[in-house]
Amino acid sequence: MALQDTTEGSRGAPFVQSLERGLAVIRAFDGDHRQLTLSDVARRTGLPRAAVRRFLLTLVELGYVRTDGRLFSLRPRVLDLGYAYLSSTSLPEVVQPHLEDLVARVHESCSVSVLDGDDIVYVARVATKRLMTVAINVGTRFPAYATSMGRVLLAARPPAERAAYLRTARLDQLTRHTVTDPDRLAAVLAEVAGQGFALLDQELEEGLRSIAVPVRDATGGVVAAMNVSASARRGPEALYRDVLPPLRQAALAVEADLRRTA
Amino acid sequence: MALQDTTEGSRGAPFVQSLERGLAVIRAFDGDHRQLTLSDVARRTGLPRAAVRRFLLTLVELGYVRTDGRLFSLRPRVLDLGYAYLSSTSLPEVVQPHLEDLVARVHESCSVSVLDGDDIVYVARVATKRLMTVAINVGTRFPAYATSMGRVLLAARPPAERAAYLRTARLDQLTRHTVTDPDRLAAVLAEVAGQGFALLDQELEEGLRSIAVPVRDATGGVVAAMNVSASARRGPEALYRDVLPPLRQAALAVEADLRRTA
Repeated sequence: MALQDTTEGSRGAPFVQSLERGLAVIRAFDGDHRQLTLSDVARRTGLPRAAVRRFLLTLVELGYVRTDGRLFSLRPRVLDLGYAYLSSTSLPEVVQPHLEDLVARVHESCSVSVLDGDDIVYVARVATKRLMTVAINVGTRFPAYATSMGRVLLAARPPAERAAYLRTARLDQLTRHTVTDPDRLAAVLAEVAGQGFALLDQELEEGLRSIAVPVRDATGGVVAAMNVSASARRGPEALYRDVLPPLRQAALAVEADLRRTA
Repeated sequence: MALQDTTEGSRGAPFVQSLERGLAVIRAFDGDHRQLTLSDVARRTGLPRAAVRRFLLTLVELGYVRTDGRLFSLRPRVLDLGYAYLSSTSLPEVVQPHLEDLVARVHESCSVSVLDGDDIVYVARVATKRLMTVAINVGTRFPAYATSMGRVLLAARPPAERAAYLRTARLDQLTRHTVTDPDRLAAVLAEVAGQGFALLDQELEEGLRSIAVPVRDATGGVVAAMNVSASARRGPEALYRDVLPPLRQAALAVEADLRRTA
């Protein structure tokens, strides 16, 4: 059977619709949807059942999906795709030992993330005790404006890009402390750019404070942010005094390694 | 342009070739191939240049790939695909706090992995100091026969499946200690099945010992393995005496949580 598969994309380039649809089928599965029937996937993707059937059976044959004939679920091979990204960037490998050293010094969870659209995405993390209500893994996303790492990354964007973000980003009130006013956020980002770090005080989740610094590559561009998160019982002064110096040292050590591997 | 996209798969089911090819394009990128030209991707996938161009431009439009017009590289959005698997299984979330407790008790890196074909795939890890020459992340694969977790997982397979593995798996000599003889490996697996743990002595990498136990789900089936890896300076008796009891306790705690979430 021949499918009308390649269409004009929105930018005029040839667009392979089957690939978009197949990736959407993979992303139909998540923590609340671990086992799905064909109809479930059709409903969650908005695709016709016949197409969903073809995609699911293809993914079964390729080893990405398992099925008992009725229920479908993802197999670990799907991790290879995310792993392709992780191993295609030197960042996680370079930062990992430095994160481990930093955790040994500050006894709090430390992470590295990058900006992707309006979100930060975790690319490395060494966790101590769980502080947040949600589990954070490599690949976890949070809206950039409400995280210390996001503010460091947004503060490093060129002025026009930062202004466009402030015009278009959705700024939800996540706690009673979250800054959601674009003008106030603009002032916060300018302050972060000036001081070279961001201290976030319970704006993502009550009871949680974090402090982040930029990580620059060999060309001086900010490519990632590194942070330490702590219980709000540890006051902001303690983060500033006890955590910021080793955090900065860790970021400098990563930058030295990035220059070596560049 | 219409593509002949759906063909008969090897099991007679309809097969969407564009999806297979698009996923192959994503997997063309790795640590040694971080930035690729269109020709590079064509060479690495064996696909025609025209097809590769369509897939790459589609992935650019979907936000999975970035390009400067000549070089292509993966974007963090690719992690969402791996994350779909991680969040679609409760295992990483359930085991994470128990791994953290275990690391606090034994002061060595602890991991959980699952079997995928002939490989183990890491689904959770809490690392202390780096012992191995390669970085291990969630998604990292190793051949099952040469790892403590792999031996626990292989030992739990039904006899026919274990026999098929021993007939077909590629058993490379990774160090001078690696068991590569199928008959000897069969005896090792039988021993692991009997004693309920696997102790691996420098068979994956010189200087590295590890010990693993099975993790069972609510139905009693072995769904994962949990291990502790240590420098070979820590003798096998110390692993048996000091590490195995807390490792077993951690696995039991995970199993209790899995029964609760089942």
